[in-house]
Amino acid sequence: MITITFLGTVSGIPSLSRNHPAIVLEHFTDIREVFLFDCGEGTQKQLMKSDVSFMAIDKIFISHWHADHFAGLIPMIQTMNLEKRQKPLTIFAPEAERFVSNILDMGYFGLRFPVKAVNVPFEGSEITKIDETENYEISSIPVLHSVPSVAFCFKEKDKWNIYEDKLEEKGIKKGPWLKKLKKEGKVVWDDQEIKIENVGYVKEGLKVVYSGDTAPCDNIIKISRDADLLIHDGTFLEEDVGSKAHADVKEAAKLAKKAGVKKLVLTHISRRYTNPKELEDQAREILPDAVVARDMMKIRLKKE
Amino acid sequence: MITITFLGTVSGIPSLSRNHPAIVLEHFTDIREVFLFDCGEGTQKQLMKSDVSFMAIDKIFISHWHADHFAGLIPMIQTMNLEKRQKPLTIFAPEAERFVSNILDMGYFGLRFPVKAVNVPFEGSEITKIDETENYEISSIPVLHSVPSVAFCFKEKDKWNIYEDKLEEKGIKKGPWLKKLKKEGKVVWDDQEIKIENVGYVKEGLKVVYSGDTAPCDNIIKISRDADLLIHDGTFLEEDVGSKAHADVKEAAKLAKKAGVKKLVLTHISRRYTNPKELEDQAREILPDAVVARDMMKIRLKKE
Repeated sequence: MITITFLGTVSGIPSLSRNHPAIVLEHFTDIREVFLFDCGEGTQKQLMKSDVSFMAIDKIFISHWHADHFAGLIPMIQTMNLEKRQKPLTIFAPEAERFVSNILDMGYFGLRFPVKAVNVPFEGSEITKIDETENYEISSIPVLHSVPSVAFCFKEKDKWNIYEDKLEEKGIKKGPWLKKLKKEGKVVWDDQEIKIENVGYVKEGLKVVYSGDTAPCDNIIKISRDADLLIHDGTFLEEDVGSKAHADVKEAAKLAKKAGVKKLVLTHISRRYTNPKELEDQAREILPDAVVARDMMKIRLKKE
Repeated sequence: MITITFLGTVSGIPSLSRNHPAIVLEHFTDIREVFLFDCGEGTQKQLMKSDVSFMAIDKIFISHWHADHFAGLIPMIQTMNLEKRQKPLTIFAPEAERFVSNILDMGYFGLRFPVKAVNVPFEGSEITKIDETENYEISSIPVLHSVPSVAFCFKEKDKWNIYEDKLEEKGIKKGPWLKKLKKEGKVVWDDQEIKIENVGYVKEGLKVVYSGDTAPCDNIIKISRDADLLIHDGTFLEEDVGSKAHADVKEAAKLAKKAGVKKLVLTHISRRYTNPKELEDQAREILPDAVVARDMMKIRLKKE
């Protein structure tokens, strides 16, 4: 299961009702893992409000180095330090080494924990795997903005699930050995070799894509193919778009439709719009379920 | 007249009810001038809430380079730029040139307005005049913290006021020429030389001091002498102080008393205290009028 909380949903200039971009993704398996995508000003306070401890975050993904997407990092790193954090924090971003090093030179931190930087490619049209564990894989692809920028994809690993009725049929008793079967593909139980494909099925992992700031581009379609959720730049209404650095809500909906994504959430909303319904209505001309994000909105994704 | 608004009043780790340090000072003469002292995370939003436009700020004073005192600068500079600011912004601080240059290397700003940095001394025990106009003078003095830190003093210029009854006595008519008299000390009116000291009196300017973060030190007494308002670090209760980098509320009150300040406001309150009255009561054992700041608290200072 995955839950997504939108901590900030405004574009460049914040408003009283919308904070600068930050999205927290919680991934639940046997354990709970917490990931942060972008970290605008006020992220640590928004996390406090959402009851997600920022101390649980080990990996942060910055889409690009405009201040509305990263300025919350500096005070959050200071607070982690004051809270006596010891475990490492890793920041993935285009030009991460350069800018994380700038951050650590900025002011007096007296850091007691390591902050690592991982550069991700920001040119071309390849999807790059940037992180992987047995539970998930994270990849990125360059997007079309005024400065080096990427979209990120969080993909749960596909997992074997067991048909309990098939076990029963075969007179096999459940037990902790099933974990080994799922991991290794086969196992000897009571003198018989059991193969996973005979008692189980593949449960496909959830896929979530976050575009960061971008004008419409094919790379988004490529990385969003069949995603369960696409969170896309929807800065403007169609009639207002005056920038080659952002998408309007209709353009975003068209991309989502082409990529076959199951759910589209529009974010990075210009402060000029005080009525999000206006944007939602326009996106829904293309995709009837499109949603405009608001601060502290939560989405729960689960595959049955 | 001066109004002070406390935008943030917490120490290192923010809480839901208190933001990181920032104080906005508005000085009213024929014109209104706006000054910002420290600029913690969220300052631009707190300014929006307080109805003070950050576009009106031309001078920012950073007491020291801990993130809770400066992290709001980066997104605020970006917003000023997005709002098409053209006039210069000047940042006064210890090591300002070094850290302002870091800020401007941090991310992609594409700045359209100049950001100037003015270093202020952070060693020794001298009061240094760092800025002056015909309306005010601003000075600083080093204080006692874990990193280079200073206190700032805002002092309205003393001004001549006119006794209107004395003019009447002498049969002199009021007019715009009185401005010249106040400025030059004497003027010829209707063939008689009028000296300002014969028809006017000196109205002393208001004096406001902000300590930034500091343990108790003599330099604070020196710069706060007879101030109308001292805003002082009051991070802890007397029994909790475990740091040589901050003051407890009683220590701050003792300094204020020694310096003969007229009003003491305690700020930089540790988040552990949910009841500010506790701190206020302790400070009032020394100074009966001491006040603990809260976010968005306003103080109005006027000399009759």
